[in-house]
Amino acid sequence: MSEKNNFKELALEKHAMWKGKLSIESKAPITNKEELALAYTPGVAEPCKEIQKDVELAYKYTGKGNLVAVITDGSAVLGLGNIGPAAGMPVMEGKCALFKTFADIDAIPICVDSYDIEEIVDTIYRISKSFGGINLEDISAPRCFEIERRLIEMCDIPVFHDDQHGTAIIAGSGIINALKYTHRPGLGSFGNKIVINGAGAAGISIARMILKLGLGDVILCDREGVIYEGAIYNNSEQKKMAKVTNRSMIKGDLNDALKDADVFVGVSGPGLLSEEMIKTMAKDPIIFAMANPEPEIYPDKAINAGAAVVGTGRSDFPNQVNNVLAFPGIFRGALNCRADKITEEMKEAAAIAIAEVIPESELRSDYVLPDPFNPEVVKKVAKAVEVAYIKGEESQNLGGSRG
Amino acid sequence: MSEKNNFKELALEKHAMWKGKLSIESKAPITNKEELALAYTPGVAEPCKEIQKDVELAYKYTGKGNLVAVITDGSAVLGLGNIGPAAGMPVMEGKCALFKTFADIDAIPICVDSYDIEEIVDTIYRISKSFGGINLEDISAPRCFEIERRLIEMCDIPVFHDDQHGTAIIAGSGIINALKYTHRPGLGSFGNKIVINGAGAAGISIARMILKLGLGDVILCDREGVIYEGAIYNNSEQKKMAKVTNRSMIKGDLNDALKDADVFVGVSGPGLLSEEMIKTMAKDPIIFAMANPEPEIYPDKAINAGAAVVGTGRSDFPNQVNNVLAFPGIFRGALNCRADKITEEMKEAAAIAIAEVIPESELRSDYVLPDPFNPEVVKKVAKAVEVAYIKGEESQNLGGSRG
Repeated sequence: MSEKNNFKELALEKHAMWKGKLSIESKAPITNKEELALAYTPGVAEPCKEIQKDVELAYKYTGKGNLVAVITDGSAVLGLGNIGPAAGMPVMEGKCALFKTFADIDAIPICVDSYDIEEIVDTIYRISKSFGGINLEDISAPRCFEIERRLIEMCDIPVFHDDQHGTAIIAGSGIINALKYTHRPGLGSFGNKIVINGAGAAGISIARMILKLGLGDVILCDREGVIYEGAIYNNSEQKKMAKVTNRSMIKGDLNDALKDADVFVGVSGPGLLSEEMIKTMAKDPIIFAMANPEPEIYPDKAINAGAAVVGTGRSDFPNQVNNVLAFPGIFRGALNCRADKITEEMKEAAAIAIAEVIPESELRSDYVLPDPFNPEVVKKVAKAVEVAYIKGEESQNLGGSRG
Repeated sequence: MSEKNNFKELALEKHAMWKGKLSIESKAPITNKEELALAYTPGVAEPCKEIQKDVELAYKYTGKGNLVAVITDGSAVLGLGNIGPAAGMPVMEGKCALFKTFADIDAIPICVDSYDIEEIVDTIYRISKSFGGINLEDISAPRCFEIERRLIEMCDIPVFHDDQHGTAIIAGSGIINALKYTHRPGLGSFGNKIVINGAGAAGISIARMILKLGLGDVILCDREGVIYEGAIYNNSEQKKMAKVTNRSMIKGDLNDALKDADVFVGVSGPGLLSEEMIKTMAKDPIIFAMANPEPEIYPDKAINAGAAVVGTGRSDFPNQVNNVLAFPGIFRGALNCRADKITEEMKEAAAIAIAEVIPESELRSDYVLPDPFNPEVVKKVAKAVEVAYIKGEESQNLGGSRG
């Protein structure tokens, strides 16, 4: 049996052994009548009455403040596509296990059995009062945008679609550190030429993050070629992006875009970046080839062609763009300061905090993103997210520009 | 400070300390990249693909088979009435803690923020695929009947409104044993005269259970007096009950009903049963005075008046009719045999099993209901419920009378 098949068999075996990756335990001891009377009737009536008087006390007397619902409709699970809510459950349980392991957050998996935006939004909204936050997961584009947007508007707790934001945040962190490592201009400089191949949800989300971080001019490419202002786009998101990206007005295809580029970011497909293409880029180019499971180019080839830093989405290569670097700390921070939403500023702060986990002196070609098991990651991200939220609240209270 | 206030303070203090009575733990170790790859991507894709092929495998590879959702709308929480979904949360968490403590079932609390039957049913149905069972909790009558009925029809997992059935099952157990203890005819005999004061949801549910168990003729009373066939009832449930109860066609009020009665069951209000009334009952009368927190008569007074057995809803008196005797074992049994519903036969079996935990020779005036902490309770109930379900399935397959 090949190693790959062995791994698949082992994953199935483990899942059959776990029979669900979560266990729900009672923190209240219930071993005799007295304890039963405190944790349940009649004692439990007291916190109920207090919360009825002041609903904010739910944070004091219940688990709401540390409880996140991980919710999917099963429409875009991993790279598997629309496999339905029941088949999405192992991923949701896994995500909940990660929340606990990395950020000590209690998370419960919920699958919504509907593909209708209206129904999904209504269902999630109606159960949202139980939770301190909602992590939307594996919901297909473009439905995910509207679902997240509407729930953010409706709910007074953070709602975050990790698939939309996680990769952008961590790719941002990786680029920040790769730019540092190759002695390029960094945050706020807008000093680099950054090509993103793939102009769907993920690519646009990364483009926005790079622009917010001020890392450089972004050139978005898709199968039709480079996106530029003045061209006609049916996709309203691409139309918006055309106005703020590609300020040098490059036209053509990926080959044209890559000439003298500092950074390549791939969220496209296997093998779409060749060694020859890398050789046309600026000296010491930075490559984030994140197509999964087959990257746009394999790290060894990219390095052969002169790449100074290579990152992928895979755990078996260095510099993995792994969502687990971001979401645990983001929710930890948001829950800590009881944020009512996760703002753009909080996401930027998370990207910068992840990068800062690695001191500049320790940056290496194969180490621009920290190990997810480094306990500093969740601490630094949570703190940065909290600070960003509080700053946002303050500037809002001072009549700042935020909403 | 009085003892009562001390207890209330302690309950609040404990709840503030727990900050939620549940903790969601990962059963999958995630301490390094290899473990992460098994529990999450890419390993988690394997069980997802298996479940996509055969949705039944959710029972093998996820926690569905041991996961119960405890769901309320907060409309009838304890004796507190409609306190809303957030204020109901401490009770839901408590119930989940009991599920784990007594039956090793993982249970998650969910509050639905709607009082509309349609919305509640839709919401619960749409999230039901994640769970192995649904325990409805503290939903006000008569809405609870329709919500439970419709969800039972729609879902392929057990849906059980504990408030409707729990008290009836355990009152049934208590009466079975009290009849045994006082040497009266028992199951299937229809040999006793049993008066139920309170003809709302709880009283009617108890009446049905007593009739199913064949313990005797039931006389239902409410504020308007005894319910009898031929009178006019707006309440359709009372109309139905008039046809099957009170076969001796007693008319009048509770006083008239109680003459020579063997059993009094109170689900009415404080102080509604007097010593004088008990004295008109048959010799060695049985009293279940379950109004909460103030019973229809206190046990000492009832015993003074000649009662042979007295039960209440309170944990500080003997023979407590405590729902925790039933629901953990009922769900344990239903999950064990992967029942698609909880049938009437399963509820009867639970009532009988709870009674049988106490050997006849050990029955005493103050011990007709077992201690909820007796580990035999959940075992025997689960087994009986399983057997009843399987028997029902078999008789259905043989063309029996069930559905």
